[in-house]
Amino acid sequence: MRILVNISYQGNQFLGFQIQQQGRTVQQQFEKILKRMHRRHVRIHPSSRTDRGVHAYEQYFHFDTDLNIAPKQWKYAMNSALPDDIYVNDVEEVSDDFHCRYDCVGKTYRYKVYQSEHRNPFESGLKTFIKEDLDLDRMNQAAQYFIGTHDFTGFCSQKTEVESKERTLYQSEIIRTEEGFDYIVTGSGFLYNMVRVLVAFLIEVGKGKRQPEEVQQLLVEKNRDNVPFTAPAEGLYLEKIYLDPEALVQDFGSDIKIHRKKSLQND
Amino acid sequence: MRILVNISYQGNQFLGFQIQQQGRTVQQQFEKILKRMHRRHVRIHPSSRTDRGVHAYEQYFHFDTDLNIAPKQWKYAMNSALPDDIYVNDVEEVSDDFHCRYDCVGKTYRYKVYQSEHRNPFESGLKTFIKEDLDLDRMNQAAQYFIGTHDFTGFCSQKTEVESKERTLYQSEIIRTEEGFDYIVTGSGFLYNMVRVLVAFLIEVGKGKRQPEEVQQLLVEKNRDNVPFTAPAEGLYLEKIYLDPEALVQDFGSDIKIHRKKSLQND
Repeated sequence: MRILVNISYQGNQFLGFQIQQQGRTVQQQFEKILKRMHRRHVRIHPSSRTDRGVHAYEQYFHFDTDLNIAPKQWKYAMNSALPDDIYVNDVEEVSDDFHCRYDCVGKTYRYKVYQSEHRNPFESGLKTFIKEDLDLDRMNQAAQYFIGTHDFTGFCSQKTEVESKERTLYQSEIIRTEEGFDYIVTGSGFLYNMVRVLVAFLIEVGKGKRQPEEVQQLLVEKNRDNVPFTAPAEGLYLEKIYLDPEALVQDFGSDIKIHRKKSLQND
Repeated sequence: MRILVNISYQGNQFLGFQIQQQGRTVQQQFEKILKRMHRRHVRIHPSSRTDRGVHAYEQYFHFDTDLNIAPKQWKYAMNSALPDDIYVNDVEEVSDDFHCRYDCVGKTYRYKVYQSEHRNPFESGLKTFIKEDLDLDRMNQAAQYFIGTHDFTGFCSQKTEVESKERTLYQSEIIRTEEGFDYIVTGSGFLYNMVRVLVAFLIEVGKGKRQPEEVQQLLVEKNRDNVPFTAPAEGLYLEKIYLDPEALVQDFGSDIKIHRKKSLQND
């Protein structure tokens, strides 16, 4: 039977989600526990393979098992064995044709920045520090231009290897917070480094070095050389995973374009 | 000339303050920078040698230098070279007979606990998690009994090697917070693991397993076997260092007993 697991983690001390030759990863922590329980290797399949240092308020993975364990017991067993920086929020049984990656129709990321005269060591790894004043209204104007279906070639890592770099953003906004701002972005999917490149560009807008109106041209040019920066991983949080198109429609309206995965990679 | 440095650090990723054969420590980070600037080894002397995982809102150290650098420039030079989880708050020149450890007449520690049904991975390393309900009023009653001058042999690590285990506590209280409670304790000095043993005992009181009134007897018995637990390091913050007896008098009254160091160790 197929088990779906909803987790949170603080990414600080992980080399990312995906298992590596060496080093601590989220996948490794779970597969170690599952191996002990099954006495064989059990592979887990996440909705998103977050990078080194990226956090998750909500992330999903699934795995197949022949153990007869109730969801509540799975949750208990995993939380008892996990380190402090990962937590299982929920476990449920799903049908065998459900797939965490292919059934993911949308994701929300939040990027957190604190602005202050002084660096705060207690935000280390949790929020990105920016000393300068930023024009948040202009940043939000620029953010709006990303909403809709675009080819994001100019706003992702040049190492991105996928067939299509077209993605649809349903939400893209700057929200003022007590200590700075959050950038919140929801999309059908995201290319490699895409959120961090978007944030870096928005920060340049906030500093007055770029103009909101440039976005349309940059989307057409599809040249990453024109958008040279990438914001650090530490401020990035995977906030929500949409496994159900209905939930996307509920949050963003019935006229939105839903992308089914299957054909997309690097999401 | 002698330079006094006021710093903060998040202790999560340090093996403690003091330099070790191997591993990342706070002392190592500063001595690496000072060595590069002086082209020779320069030793730093802290007010307190915090343990692995313990944080500091305020910590001091001093060092001697023949470089002619203004305090503001020292601060800038160090902050530019330090990792994200340490920050220099302030630098000043002091007289050559000032000593960070021997002139320290008091310290305040804060211990942070969050109470919740679920473990929160974003508090990992920053606050201690307790699931149970606790009677904070009784804990605060118990905390009051520690105020004054006592032999704390029963409330420190049995590995503590000092001449006298008598210390004076000026403040010892439980404060309710949004997510749980803080324990705040100010004293002339603290024995090895002392704050973490006090907290562990207070939590037992909060669970109803110990009584506030037992404190007096335990202080007389001086037997650590009767106080078997030690709370984890992650919730512990060095909050304030008193380098001036006047400041202690200002906070706790002119009738307090001030302890001059020189003779005390392991503080």
